[in-house]
Amino acid sequence: MEGGRGGKRWRFATPNLAVAAAGERSIQRYLLQLHACLDEHGPRPVIPLSHGDPSSSACFRTAPEAEEAVAAAVRSGDYNGYSSPATSLPARRAVAEYLSCDLPYKLCTDDIFLTSGGTQAIEIVMSVFGQPGANILLPKPGYPKHEAHAVFHRMEVRLYDLVPERGWEINVEAVEALADENTVAIVITNPNNPCGNVYTYEHLSKIADTASKLGLLVIADEVYGHLVYGSTPFVPMGVFGETVPVLTLGAISKRWVVDSLRSFRNLTTGPATFIQVKLDISQLSDICDDIDFCSKLVKEESVVLLPGRALGMENWLRITFALDPPRLKQGLERVKSFCRRHQSHANMLNISASAKVEPHFGMSKS
Amino acid sequence: MEGGRGGKRWRFATPNLAVAAAGERSIQRYLLQLHACLDEHGPRPVIPLSHGDPSSSACFRTAPEAEEAVAAAVRSGDYNGYSSPATSLPARRAVAEYLSCDLPYKLCTDDIFLTSGGTQAIEIVMSVFGQPGANILLPKPGYPKHEAHAVFHRMEVRLYDLVPERGWEINVEAVEALADENTVAIVITNPNNPCGNVYTYEHLSKIADTASKLGLLVIADEVYGHLVYGSTPFVPMGVFGETVPVLTLGAISKRWVVDSLRSFRNLTTGPATFIQVKLDISQLSDICDDIDFCSKLVKEESVVLLPGRALGMENWLRITFALDPPRLKQGLERVKSFCRRHQSHANMLNISASAKVEPHFGMSKS
Repeated sequence: MEGGRGGKRWRFATPNLAVAAAGERSIQRYLLQLHACLDEHGPRPVIPLSHGDPSSSACFRTAPEAEEAVAAAVRSGDYNGYSSPATSLPARRAVAEYLSCDLPYKLCTDDIFLTSGGTQAIEIVMSVFGQPGANILLPKPGYPKHEAHAVFHRMEVRLYDLVPERGWEINVEAVEALADENTVAIVITNPNNPCGNVYTYEHLSKIADTASKLGLLVIADEVYGHLVYGSTPFVPMGVFGETVPVLTLGAISKRWVVDSLRSFRNLTTGPATFIQVKLDISQLSDICDDIDFCSKLVKEESVVLLPGRALGMENWLRITFALDPPRLKQGLERVKSFCRRHQSHANMLNISASAKVEPHFGMSKS
Repeated sequence: MEGGRGGKRWRFATPNLAVAAAGERSIQRYLLQLHACLDEHGPRPVIPLSHGDPSSSACFRTAPEAEEAVAAAVRSGDYNGYSSPATSLPARRAVAEYLSCDLPYKLCTDDIFLTSGGTQAIEIVMSVFGQPGANILLPKPGYPKHEAHAVFHRMEVRLYDLVPERGWEINVEAVEALADENTVAIVITNPNNPCGNVYTYEHLSKIADTASKLGLLVIADEVYGHLVYGSTPFVPMGVFGETVPVLTLGAISKRWVVDSLRSFRNLTTGPATFIQVKLDISQLSDICDDIDFCSKLVKEESVVLLPGRALGMENWLRITFALDPPRLKQGLERVKSFCRRHQSHANMLNISASAKVEPHFGMSKS
């Protein structure tokens, strides 16, 4: 490799292939590509239906109690240094007690590890289990950071299918076929991102039995825990902790928006989360795939949707509903007129009903 | 490996050797060992002269301006979601402008990467440059996290000596001898942790020339930038950015204590930082090494010092001065009486004058 000034050979200039491969697994990469198609100075404001961060809309503002708690903690001077077991113990105890409410056994403080957000938790888990030769089972479609960090830590990624016709349940037979003696873990996301479905007790029990039979750790990404549609109960994977070792990933920020979501329910019938939309290319006159659809949409309508490929599902689209209702409505109208303009026949879009999408949402406990 | 319930073989139970090796490189490990020797219910309060975190002493409280800025940012609602280029741009621009003041060229925002503290910066750098077969040059004594993250990312660590007789300067000849075609970078810490010295312009220039000749990246850990003793000028490594590629690690928290340190200077003659103390074992009757010294000290005097071995220097001690003056004085008196009790001859401790330790400190700019 050449690098540096004057054709000098710098020894660090060899690209790190694991970093490059991990960087490929990111939503950001697709969004950058779409934003490059966007006319920022166009006549209409851009409507981002691609990004799952409700905090950018004023109506989903973080609960003031949470803001005040952070401000008070900073001002107390008690938390401005390095954390120690003494400073983190009350938080770990609180998390252990909170999570134990839903479990048939009690967690202790040593069962709890605090991280800087869910992403650092994913990083740590993947780095600890990422050994040369190891492989890990991840869902498809899935959250790209699971795959990025697995690849980054040189694990082989094996994707198992979620089945849209069965409410995005896990294809358990496929899991069994994929695993071998080098498989260390299976990641499950529940409630599911991006599909929005919630697994039943029976389905989770089947997953636990399968993982136990195969000798796998279950890494349960439950950052959306209790954020469910309608009255669907959320069952934490930890319930099956006697059957199989379970490592649960959680995050506080997703819960912070719960109050905002509850208020939002009074305003509108649209759930503040994602919906998956399957794209029937044959119904379109001049669109070749999901990337092409999103690129032309952003150019013509200044609306950003996420192509399904970013989550492992070609020719699907992900639409975020986590936006203030007037902009959401306007964005969907623009998508509709785009579709009309490009359709070769009627009924181009089939809204997938598989994720039990209802025009309401709720929490399994409040 | 056996693991799990009922002798079942869990496939993830093989220990990750890189994680275990990285865990060995930590100050925490030594502190846990010492705290196990401590009688927590002893008659005298414990004096921690081992831990470099002044924020635990009320007199080194974080500047209220910094606390208020954080509280205001949280309350604004503008920074409670995922960060984006738009939210981080002003901060990156400010850092670029600030650092450019000390450089013969201008940094731009793309030169700046924001991380969650200096530790995450070390993590990222080591993970990006950590390739199979690569090695990295680290100082001895040094900051254990450099080595921990290098080892964790499967780099071979090669330690070069800092020379106490030359004010802890880098042994540049040793650096040349250690490097080979797989060496990707050299880490330098300036101002130095744990030695407290500051490199001169001439010495840094020599390091830049050597690194350039060898084709190495210079990773300059400057988290203590501008926190120097007396009137010693601090020269950032970036000054030599035309000679050699430089990646500088900085951290905002270390600067936050500057105002507190300035106030402290008016109260006392003791610099609020570390001092290295060489232990002459031959002068002691019943102490075999630095670990033994610290273990007996904590047991008999409830004073925690850090054994030099934690930083790569056997039979040295590190004493933190970042404590409120009355407790610091009391702690040092207890160390003195411990030494008297265990001495075989007079003059057991030789305070190293190598780090230009003076009873004052200052900042190279204010």
